[in-house]
Amino acid sequence: MKESLKSEIKKLTDEAQIVYVSSVNQQGFPNTKAMLYIIHGGLKTHYLSTNYSSKRVAQFLENPKACLYFCNEAAFKGLMLTGTMEICTDRSHKEMLWKEGFEMYYPNGIDDEDYCVFKFTATEGNYYHGLSNITFPVEEL
Amino acid sequence: MKESLKSEIKKLTDEAQIVYVSSVNQQGFPNTKAMLYIIHGGLKTHYLSTNYSSKRVAQFLENPKACLYFCNEAAFKGLMLTGTMEICTDRSHKEMLWKEGFEMYYPNGIDDEDYCVFKFTATEGNYYHGLSNITFPVEEL
Repeated sequence: MKESLKSEIKKLTDEAQIVYVSSVNQQGFPNTKAMLYIIHGGLKTHYLSTNYSSKRVAQFLENPKACLYFCNEAAFKGLMLTGTMEICTDRSHKEMLWKEGFEMYYPNGIDDEDYCVFKFTATEGNYYHGLSNITFPVEEL
Repeated sequence: MKESLKSEIKKLTDEAQIVYVSSVNQQGFPNTKAMLYIIHGGLKTHYLSTNYSSKRVAQFLENPKACLYFCNEAAFKGLMLTGTMEICTDRSHKEMLWKEGFEMYYPNGIDDEDYCVFKFTATEGNYYHGLSNITFPVEEL
């Protein structure tokens, strides 16, 4: 992949305030939801904080197949990454994602048992800009 | 469902310029993509125009399980509908969705063989606003 395209993709993920996270539920239906507070570990790995008690966590524990979608609507740019979602409950991941204000959701702080971290690892990507569309193995990123 | 909530949901879908459409690919991974030009047939049925030759059409022909996600990011409101996606190639659906300017994508006009219509029929919904979250059978809409 060209360096210019790679940096375009990096810009899209860096600037995204929101990411659309998809799972597959027990009945085989895709489920999509907007999430905030993403941290990027390069282009292949992405972290999000979430509630351990949420439906989404239960779905990923049963079926880790996942999709992240980054979108700049105004510029008609979109990046879809497919891969797997891991649920991290160890302190180092929870510390990494913790933000001031999270006490509102997790009264026991970083060690709150309902607070956990999604670690997404991509295996394939699809990037479009306008009418052009490119699918690539994630090793190219 | 309360009428006030129903009209809040209707407002969200009516105002959405973009909808996030999810399928499940042949390997069982969710695939999500932003799409434009949606037409609503009430809250349970939604129509989108697309390319018959697209990967997404092939996925839905094999597995019709689908999800539509409407989002107002600024207001922290989101509606997820799960259901099934039908591919319509009949003239009446194609006429219904046709817009001036589509000739750019479909040079043969309404009868262009690459032009077709997604008909989504919801079976279940999930609506959130801030921290409140409600799941409902689509009959309640």
